[in-house]
Amino acid sequence: MTWVELPPDTGFGIDNLPLGVFSTADSGRRTGVRIGDAVLELVEITGDDVHRTGSLNEFMARGPVAWAALRADIRQWLTEEAHRDTVEKHLYRLDEVTLHLPVEVADYVDFYSSRQHAENVGRLFRPDAEPLPANWTHLPIGYHGRAGTVRVSGTPVVRPSGQRRAGDFGLSERLDLEAEVGFVVGVGSQLGTAVPAEALADHVFGICLVNDWSARDLQAWEYVPLGPFLGKSFLTSVSPWVVPLAALEAARVPPPTRDPRPLAYLDDAGRPWGLDVTLEVRLNGELISRPPFATQYWTAPQQLAHLTVNGASLRTGDLFASGTVSGPQREQWGSLLELSENGRQPLTIADGSTSTFLEDGDVVTVTASAPGPGDSRIGLGEVTGAVCAPGGSARPAGGRTVA
Amino acid sequence: MTWVELPPDTGFGIDNLPLGVFSTADSGRRTGVRIGDAVLELVEITGDDVHRTGSLNEFMARGPVAWAALRADIRQWLTEEAHRDTVEKHLYRLDEVTLHLPVEVADYVDFYSSRQHAENVGRLFRPDAEPLPANWTHLPIGYHGRAGTVRVSGTPVVRPSGQRRAGDFGLSERLDLEAEVGFVVGVGSQLGTAVPAEALADHVFGICLVNDWSARDLQAWEYVPLGPFLGKSFLTSVSPWVVPLAALEAARVPPPTRDPRPLAYLDDAGRPWGLDVTLEVRLNGELISRPPFATQYWTAPQQLAHLTVNGASLRTGDLFASGTVSGPQREQWGSLLELSENGRQPLTIADGSTSTFLEDGDVVTVTASAPGPGDSRIGLGEVTGAVCAPGGSARPAGGRTVA
Repeated sequence: MTWVELPPDTGFGIDNLPLGVFSTADSGRRTGVRIGDAVLELVEITGDDVHRTGSLNEFMARGPVAWAALRADIRQWLTEEAHRDTVEKHLYRLDEVTLHLPVEVADYVDFYSSRQHAENVGRLFRPDAEPLPANWTHLPIGYHGRAGTVRVSGTPVVRPSGQRRAGDFGLSERLDLEAEVGFVVGVGSQLGTAVPAEALADHVFGICLVNDWSARDLQAWEYVPLGPFLGKSFLTSVSPWVVPLAALEAARVPPPTRDPRPLAYLDDAGRPWGLDVTLEVRLNGELISRPPFATQYWTAPQQLAHLTVNGASLRTGDLFASGTVSGPQREQWGSLLELSENGRQPLTIADGSTSTFLEDGDVVTVTASAPGPGDSRIGLGEVTGAVCAPGGSARPAGGRTVA
Repeated sequence: MTWVELPPDTGFGIDNLPLGVFSTADSGRRTGVRIGDAVLELVEITGDDVHRTGSLNEFMARGPVAWAALRADIRQWLTEEAHRDTVEKHLYRLDEVTLHLPVEVADYVDFYSSRQHAENVGRLFRPDAEPLPANWTHLPIGYHGRAGTVRVSGTPVVRPSGQRRAGDFGLSERLDLEAEVGFVVGVGSQLGTAVPAEALADHVFGICLVNDWSARDLQAWEYVPLGPFLGKSFLTSVSPWVVPLAALEAARVPPPTRDPRPLAYLDDAGRPWGLDVTLEVRLNGELISRPPFATQYWTAPQQLAHLTVNGASLRTGDLFASGTVSGPQREQWGSLLELSENGRQPLTIADGSTSTFLEDGDVVTVTASAPGPGDSRIGLGEVTGAVCAPGGSARPAGGRTVA
């Protein structure tokens, strides 16, 4: 359908068209769209300086009509043979570009919307209490993370130091991953005004993958009563490609049944935004988990409605993430905390090695895809990171890191 | 000492010189310095476009040498009679300008560093447990707030809606104030590198007043286990003038004794940054509390060191606030939650009226000052806000609001 030569089983066919920011050896950051294993540079072909700002923010702020118009143009350029001559010279091979953080992150919110994950963590962190907090089935619990430490996939994961218990300071010994999906806000809202659940696609431009690296020892000691802080704030990695909501129509599925029935402002029944995205988590190249995003209890429209129901405003560049995605089966859990039962039960991976928490040199890669039109798949790309000691350099043991 | 005519007992004499952002009827946002009841416009007199960017960020990013140089220049312009003719024409009367948010806030962190406040809140929120969490005396507890809803003093306080208990949705009935001091970061730091406590003045440009408006009913229902979210994210107000650390030398006092002795990275003994700032909280013009900032258990250098000890980077525009300031005496407590014992004990104010939490129409104003050189005082100005219903307009019952 496109004249661009696509690798077999690519997740980046003509129905995906995610946007990102890239640079080349001889030119600075600009916006591109991924097609197969190539990147189409948008500045020259559109003649629009919005694509040379070095982030997607200014373009995303234009809103859904502009998003749809650009998407239609790109589709035309990449499918009609007549455009080939003019368009082809703006294609770069993916392996000759550097990918950057696609969005200047305004506020970063992380939810906690997988019931399985919340129950798993409750059992491990609060063994004497009910696994789910009393409020969990009534609202999508969330908290603000550190926007300034959201970085692009490939950023080295420097092992954090901190207080592990009373009087005990040192490098984290329980460094973990969290496989998540993030929603990127394009259009902001007014202070004092709630955004209804059904307005999701008026505000959210698209999705990406998120690894919310976590130091479980620091987190367990610090989080009562004001929540996670240093256990999370040292780094959050995101995938370089933002997949537009428009590419996810075939992936929409009804969310699970909620009991009790959510309050009116959290009603998302009429507009299902469960998403059949399957994540894959690899440790040093070996598959360790396949978290199914479709099992999430609270969906993005509910998260958006909750986030703003108190009148809090949105800004272009806001990122809200799902929280760790964990399905009902053990091999679908999205963190080592869960997979290793807080380090008590080492995980045996396919190459025969065992693992509890992350070691220096470990490389974690999360990939994901969703159904597209027909038999196609929509790829979300990957978010990867190699763990290193402070002052050391990342030593990738596998996978490809993006600088 | 200055040729500018100063009102008696001004907190804005030649030793203060706070920076802010203002506009006038015929010109856009630019940087000014407050002297007495006037504002000196900096764009024309310096010829430096950094002062017409509409926030202090770009100037603050230049660092301490640039801060000191500008401060020395301003002092000279305002004290030497020879400069009067050229300088005087760039002075505006305070009542003919509009003041704006001085800083584009990057990340906003709120600490919880008053022991009296933490004990008061612990007793009210967790009556069956020890008032102080186990970690409290070991580290400055903090969490990330919503940077996008930090606004300048005078912004209407729209009463937030939300979940007050299971299945109970409506307007907050326990709307509260929190009187705090905020620290504004000028110079950022590298990801993966801790900032030592003694580097405070290399990174922090100055301080402001903060009112971290809180909906106690929403907060109490949502905050377990990930901390405050919607109970705080609807609005945080800051004073329009940022008082440079350089103006606070005479206000530095030793912090209280800490037991247990803090870990090495939290050692601030050699460089006291306790600050003898006295806050005053007024409700509809009546004084209801005088929180003493000098009693804070954890100081700004400790907060900065803690915030970054895991390698989290700082950015220009980061704001970290002290948490509610509450002294040992009841009349020194910095929130209505504490003053009214969570609504059980209405507060009788000087005009004979009683109050528990905030009513529509209430105006809260926090002011503060600190000792300056000789007999002078360093004013922090004020942070004020009038409470209104959603869709309603603010009805100031007293005090002056800044648009």
